[in-house]
Amino acid sequence: MEFTLALCQMPVADNKEENIKTALTYIEAAAKRADIIVLPEMWCCPYEASKFPLYAENNKGPICTAISEAAGKSQKYVIAGSIPESSNGRVYNTSFVYGPDGGQISMHRKAHLFDIDVEDGIRFFESDTLSPGNCATVFDTPFGKIGLGICYDMRFFHLADIMARAGADIIIYPACFNMTTGPAHWHLTLRARAVDNQVYTAGICSARNEKQSYTAFGHSLCCDPWGSVIAEADTGAEIVYATVNTDHIAKIRRQLPFRSQRRTDLKLSDNLKE
Amino acid sequence: MEFTLALCQMPVADNKEENIKTALTYIEAAAKRADIIVLPEMWCCPYEASKFPLYAENNKGPICTAISEAAGKSQKYVIAGSIPESSNGRVYNTSFVYGPDGGQISMHRKAHLFDIDVEDGIRFFESDTLSPGNCATVFDTPFGKIGLGICYDMRFFHLADIMARAGADIIIYPACFNMTTGPAHWHLTLRARAVDNQVYTAGICSARNEKQSYTAFGHSLCCDPWGSVIAEADTGAEIVYATVNTDHIAKIRRQLPFRSQRRTDLKLSDNLKE
Repeated sequence: MEFTLALCQMPVADNKEENIKTALTYIEAAAKRADIIVLPEMWCCPYEASKFPLYAENNKGPICTAISEAAGKSQKYVIAGSIPESSNGRVYNTSFVYGPDGGQISMHRKAHLFDIDVEDGIRFFESDTLSPGNCATVFDTPFGKIGLGICYDMRFFHLADIMARAGADIIIYPACFNMTTGPAHWHLTLRARAVDNQVYTAGICSARNEKQSYTAFGHSLCCDPWGSVIAEADTGAEIVYATVNTDHIAKIRRQLPFRSQRRTDLKLSDNLKE
Repeated sequence: MEFTLALCQMPVADNKEENIKTALTYIEAAAKRADIIVLPEMWCCPYEASKFPLYAENNKGPICTAISEAAGKSQKYVIAGSIPESSNGRVYNTSFVYGPDGGQISMHRKAHLFDIDVEDGIRFFESDTLSPGNCATVFDTPFGKIGLGICYDMRFFHLADIMARAGADIIIYPACFNMTTGPAHWHLTLRARAVDNQVYTAGICSARNEKQSYTAFGHSLCCDPWGSVIAEADTGAEIVYATVNTDHIAKIRRQLPFRSQRRTDLKLSDNLKE
């Protein structure tokens, strides 16, 4: 089964309405070629913890309504990156997914909040304003099963393992890596999750804008199960398209059968004998 | 705590006695600079499944005796790559470890046997002649805790996870990647295990020899917990030295605290709600 994935590396402004307009333009353009269209993490607001509650909406708000309608109009699957979702007095970093009829078919709340403090680098605490989700997310499409994580979630190999064992053919991470961790770990992590779990992976980042306090890394990419990057954006605003062939997964798994060779029985030895 | 690791990318011949002699030369040379000396996988015999039983010895045989004496003579830690070990009628791919007094302080039997069949690439079945070990191995030294796996073991992130959670500061893999998987996955896998587990990693391969049926990839390397390769050999015979600073580990873990941020409670969602 072959399908085309559109990675929308869109620019993000401070103005919510402007961002919605941009997203709709990208979805409309991507729908001409793609079967599944993906937006980046927090595409509707600046990536700043203090801003998330101010831009938050529930899944009936103008953001979700606009994207749902765009999915229905284009008759494509749209993984709406992520938005600050307000629900029961909390705010989550949530990815809503719409089917070709515009109906919501899945959602993922970022389970691992981005709280880091790198010396001479980035300091950021999502947990200042956000609550974490508590689930791993895999959903069905006619093209295959899709695992969905958000940005920092990709750091956690246990989560990718859950999604791969649940049958994901591709794991998609709307994301917003920065200029510290991006150069160091973006390609590495997306490629490693693909090779280790023998799935496709994709990371969708927003376009780089040096004027923003949190500068996105860009380089949205899709990686095949052999670890080869099959599509990659530069740093600026663009849509890149990846051809995902799920038959390729079975071939790689036959050649390097380490999914079936895994041991769950290994215990620490006493060192001088088994 | 800082120490020097020697990665002995030695050439491997068909003749066992010649290989022992070469190993002793490498250990003697490396002992001038290094605290811990590592040999590659199956350094005493050709890397061919049919040959392993013919070269196999137990831990009192000439191979182990020679390396034990060399460790004692040099007063260094020697991780003796791996050899075909005969024990109770079986043959294992085993790494013996000697302390500075020449005594055996640990051992690891390869737990994941290398059975692969890549189209237009490598076909190899260790399980034709070898039995797998059943343990994960971590041992203490005055320099820190060392996790020990062998080659294909590095493919399995669950094993690295066991070793890292047992306190390993560095995970060392004597190995013999080939010309199919080496270019594709050698750097990627060693770097990913380091970053994901926030430990140092090292892979020690034998020198490349295009005349051998199984052509080793070379490129022995050591990677720090940020994912930076801090020492790397070319393809030929050489010793490379890496300065491992275990204080660097604590710093990286403070900056990117994802070891403590891991979730073990995540379950698959029903997609439309948590």
